[in-house]
Amino acid sequence: MERLKKQIEFILEVDKLKRILRQSILTDGKERENDAEHSWHISLMAILLLEHSNEEIDVLRVIKMLLIHDIVEIDAGDTYCYDKEGHNDKREREEKAAKRIFGMLPKDQCEEMISLWDEFEQMETAESKYAASLDRLQPLLLNYATKGKSWRDHGIESKQIIERNAHIDCGSKELWEFAMNMIDECIEKGYLEK
Amino acid sequence: MERLKKQIEFILEVDKLKRILRQSILTDGKERENDAEHSWHISLMAILLLEHSNEEIDVLRVIKMLLIHDIVEIDAGDTYCYDKEGHNDKREREEKAAKRIFGMLPKDQCEEMISLWDEFEQMETAESKYAASLDRLQPLLLNYATKGKSWRDHGIESKQIIERNAHIDCGSKELWEFAMNMIDECIEKGYLEK
Repeated sequence: MERLKKQIEFILEVDKLKRILRQSILTDGKERENDAEHSWHISLMAILLLEHSNEEIDVLRVIKMLLIHDIVEIDAGDTYCYDKEGHNDKREREEKAAKRIFGMLPKDQCEEMISLWDEFEQMETAESKYAASLDRLQPLLLNYATKGKSWRDHGIESKQIIERNAHIDCGSKELWEFAMNMIDECIEKGYLEK
Repeated sequence: MERLKKQIEFILEVDKLKRILRQSILTDGKERENDAEHSWHISLMAILLLEHSNEEIDVLRVIKMLLIHDIVEIDAGDTYCYDKEGHNDKREREEKAAKRIFGMLPKDQCEEMISLWDEFEQMETAESKYAASLDRLQPLLLNYATKGKSWRDHGIESKQIIERNAHIDCGSKELWEFAMNMIDECIEKGYLEK
């Protein structure tokens, strides 16, 4: 029962992820997305888009990574992907957060979660490359659906978007081709500065 | 590319799940939870609590069910679990929704999603029993953390809660034992009417 109690305390603690806001705007064009919603969305994408992965992968490990990849932001906050300054101490802040939050779990599960989070961050395995593709593609989709609202709010240009998201290609050439077409369409439609 | 376009249109459509509110209150005691947040939370629980399942199960299939089980509520709305009247036409409303929403996917994926949703609803397989346990346990946890806020708001008594949630036992005897202890504690602390 002591083990289950630890698991439940962790499950209640990570409820806070539902209040960590991202810069993405939902397709209704009004509200900002939070980390829990985003994690749900990309986990579902992992299942539906699996056939587009460059390599054969273990999709369960991909989903595990995606479900937990943002939990560190409960303490460390969301760092906007185009915020260069915020990225200077991102790793340090997030490692501290990982220790505290995953540390609430029984030791074996804490180690598994930290190892999955590390794997996701390193983007070296086929699973983490595919997972990262989805994590990058999803905000592009929301921007497309909201006529580039969060890009325009932050003055983001197409060059930055291409630079930031080019590694979608490492996980899925097909999804990157799709994303590039979508970015072109956004420029044509005036959602995005060239 | 036609196939990928369909998949992306579905992925954008289900963004609406983030605006379907449930009766549960988040652990901050203020805001209502939405279906996407709930689906993320119980998918993560599926991984962390797997050792408590009564039977050996395919956890990937459990997570697939949990990620998609509420999507029909985009059209059918959330029916509060203690609303008997709302349950009269629930199945009919949800079947129509399933056809429209999953029907946006390529045919093979539409069939897979409807079959997973059906499996979840029927609660006959070991996977769907475990999935249902988590779907029931999670609102109990949020109620515990918020001193029974949504129970008190709706005048729910412990008898109704036990009746509604007793099938947690079918998926996990350990989680049901834990839930019963928690319900007793809620009564003692005055979060819940006996």
